[in-house]
Formats: sequence, structure tokens, C-alpha cells
Amino acid sequence: MHSVSLHAIPDIPEIKPGDELPKILGDAIEACGLSLKDGDVLTSAHKIFSKAEGRIVNLTTVTPSQDAKRYGEELNKDPRKVEVILQESRRVVRHFKRPTQHEGTIICEHKLGFISANAAVDESNSGQDQTLILLPEDPDTSARHMQAALSKRFNVRIGFAITDTFGRPWRLGQVNVAVGLSGIPATIKEQGNTDAHGRVLNVTEPAFADELAAASGLVISKAGQTPVVLFRGLSWNFTESSAQNLIRSQKEDMFR
Amino acid sequence: MHSVSLHAIPDIPEIKPGDELPKILGDAIEACGLSLKDGDVLTSAHKIFSKAEGRIVNLTTVTPSQDAKRYGEELNKDPRKVEVILQESRRVVRHFKRPTQHEGTIICEHKLGFISANAAVDESNSGQDQTLILLPEDPDTSARHMQAALSKRFNVRIGFAITDTFGRPWRLGQVNVAVGLSGIPATIKEQGNTDAHGRVLNVTEPAFADELAAASGLVISKAGQTPVVLFRGLSWNFTESSAQNLIRSQKEDMFR
Repeated sequence: MHSVSLHAIPDIPEIKPGDELPKILGDAIEACGLSLKDGDVLTSAHKIFSKAEGRIVNLTTVTPSQDAKRYGEELNKDPRKVEVILQESRRVVRHFKRPTQHEGTIICEHKLGFISANAAVDESNSGQDQTLILLPEDPDTSARHMQAALSKRFNVRIGFAITDTFGRPWRLGQVNVAVGLSGIPATIKEQGNTDAHGRVLNVTEPAFADELAAASGLVISKAGQTPVVLFRGLSWNFTESSAQNLIRSQKEDMFR
Repeated sequence: MHSVSLHAIPDIPEIKPGDELPKILGDAIEACGLSLKDGDVLTSAHKIFSKAEGRIVNLTTVTPSQDAKRYGEELNKDPRKVEVILQESRRVVRHFKRPTQHEGTIICEHKLGFISANAAVDESNSGQDQTLILLPEDPDTSARHMQAALSKRFNVRIGFAITDTFGRPWRLGQVNVAVGLSGIPATIKEQGNTDAHGRVLNVTEPAFADELAAASGLVISKAGQTPVVLFRGLSWNFTESSAQNLIRSQKEDMFR
């Protein structure tokens, strides 16, 4: 029987800029009586990485551009926040404010290529008022550093994914998706494989990293301060990887 | 520590129209040494339900309409298959054939409201050539019957989700999503909750059922004939539910 277990790592402290995150995570894993084994995968909400890397913007330091003021007025959004969102973005894909919304939404293509609301700029869990949290500068590299440090400390080969919480077109509610990867495949191609009846599965390519990210949402909650999840029992092969491999190219995308 | 386990139920036989699926599933759960406990959730790929319900179309019985012939020519698709896709749909959202594709794609709004490629009409794992598998007629009701039967047999209160594998705009690879629900919430509203710093989380509503569906992909594979996954250790409250609660209304959707 193929079985997988998920464990939310408890007692990770509040993270501050400059904190040595690999040591903090490793200590938390040991403190709860777990260790790491070959083949384990860890996921983490991006926020602890963003905070450790100082990717925090104090709104009082932001001067909004004319564009930001225009969107701010139309969407009832703080123009300084809009300015930060625009600075994080390559372009605006859609913007709207529904009558039921206090504050509108800007769907952006982030500089890293991810398409999401407000360029993944976040207000909650910042630990301070008047501050916004951005994605890590380079989440793949952040994941790689963490993966390397934990692999060394526990003398194992593991995978690591950094996640963010995204809404979806067409479907309500949010799911976590991978924004940074180390060691684990973004997708697993089943093309060319045949099903149990010998028929070629010509389009099947499960988004393994996004399956992990979404699953992590089952044991963490935003309010609960358990951003890190340990997965044990997964079937995967170690691979050089990047969350960029999850991004559909504009040419192949019918919805931007 | 919050921990959750996933177990792919082995040795579920090939399903044929008219099979008594609740008995087959219950037997498979017992045969592998598992049982069901209060709070367990099961997910299943929709195909075993579709097959048991006879939602199989033999292409030789299909006469394509003019519309189907037109799409078929443009997209290099069997017009009989297009006809079945159109019959399952309220409308076509997009259609395209990329140069790299042997056969194009029709993004449809299914009669049940789900937006996906080819109206969730599937060729693989049908067990026969020249046949297509449709979604169950009413996946919520299918899930409810299964949930009731298994709850009675094992004298427990459980949740049940029927899933399908969907592609996504913007991101590569597929993930499973919920298309039928019984007992478990579609989404879990965290609005009004506050984060660890007392800030109101005003838009957080994790898509619990889709998190489960995506997670199930970690232990099943299309080639592996393990469509059913048992989740143990989840935090959820029993609720009357429907996968319709996962569908964003057209009015609130910027991408159709």
C-alpha cells in the first residue's frame, strides 16, 4: 500500500530579518522528536523566508506613482500598496473591484512569472502594522540553500518547496502552490506511459510540486504559525528543479 | 503536532457498468487491513463512478453535428468525440490547437459548471477502444450514496470526495480537483479569523476539498489503478456540502 504522512512542524518562532532560518528549522524538527530521512520533502510557506530575507516594506517609505494613484482610486486601495504591487510586477493582467469588495484586486504577472492577485504582496502575518511582505527575491535559490543546509545537517537527500497561497480562475477558495523548488520535480511527465489497458496517456503530467503545496494546506493554517510541513513516503526522484518549470508560457496560455 | 496520513487503497478491481461500488470499496478497504474511523475522508477518481454508472459512450454510436465537424476539422479531433464534448457542455470558453499538439483542446463550461479541457470527457482507462468516459451524471449524489453506504457499513461518520484531473491556466501540469462532495466542506472560511498578530485575515478561504483532491494525486497514479485514497487525521466538521460551492460565478469571474 502506498502511504504518505504529513507532519506540521510545531514551535517555529516568529522570524525576523537576518534570522538564520536553516538552523531554526533544523532545531524545530529535532525539538519535536522528528528527524529527516532520505526521500523526505519539506514545504514551507514563503513568509518565513521573506521575513528572514528582509523582504518587508514599510508603507511609510513608499511614494506612489501616478499609475498607483489611479488604480488606488479606482479600486479603493492604498496607493502606496498599489505602488509596491506594481513594482513587483511585469504587468497587470486584470484589475477589478466588485460591489461586495471593500478593496479591489489586481491580477498581476509577477516579475518571477507567477500570475496571482496583488503580485503576491501580502499584509497578513507581517507582525507589524503598515508593512507588506513580498515574495523572496529568488525563491528557487532560497529553497536550494535551505535544502542544502538541512541535507548536510541530517546527512540525507531531501526535497524542499516554498509555497504561496493563490486564488484560481473559475474556482472559489485558495490553494497553496509552489513558488520555489529544490531537488523535487515541478511536474512528473506520464506522457508515453500507458494506462492499465495499454492506452498511451498522452497528456498526463501531474504538477507534483503543486500537489505537495496544496496538500500542505491540510495541516497548516495561517493563524496557526505552522508554516513548515514534512512529507514522508513520497515517490520521487531527486532532480535539479525550478518553480519556473510550473509556469505556462504566455504563447501557450489562453487566459492572459 | 498535526499529522495526516494518506493511504492508497490497493486491489480495487476493474469496474463495469452496474457494479455495486460501495460494496467493492468497502471490501477493498477491509481486504488491505484498514477500516474506517470517525473523521476519515476518502477521495476517489471519478472514473470508477462513471464506469459503475455506465457513463461510457461508444464512438460508433455518435453522429456528429455540423458544429462538431467544424471544430473537429479545425482542431484535428474526431468529430464524434467533439460531439460528445459539446453535448456535455453549456458552452465553449476557448478552443485552440497549438502547432506542437497532434489534437487541439476545447475548454468548456460543463453542464455541471466546471470549466476544464474537453468537458472532462476522457479517453484513457476506459478499458475499451473507441469509448469515452463522461463525468458521473450528478457527482454530489454519487458521493452522498457512497458516503452513506460506507458510514453505515463501518458505523462511522466520514467524508467523501469524487475528483477529476484538470489543467490550469497560467501553470503547467495537472492537479486533481473535487467534482462531487459529501460531508466535507468545499472551502473553509477563515474570514474574520485573526492571524497570530491579531490582524484580520479578510480573504483567506482555503479550498479544503481541492486541497484533498490535489493531495490524493501524491499517492495515486493513472497507470496504477489505485483511484481511492484514505485520509486520516484531518481537521474538519461534518457539513452538508456540494462541489457546486467550489464554482466561481460567471459574474465574479474575470477569466471566462
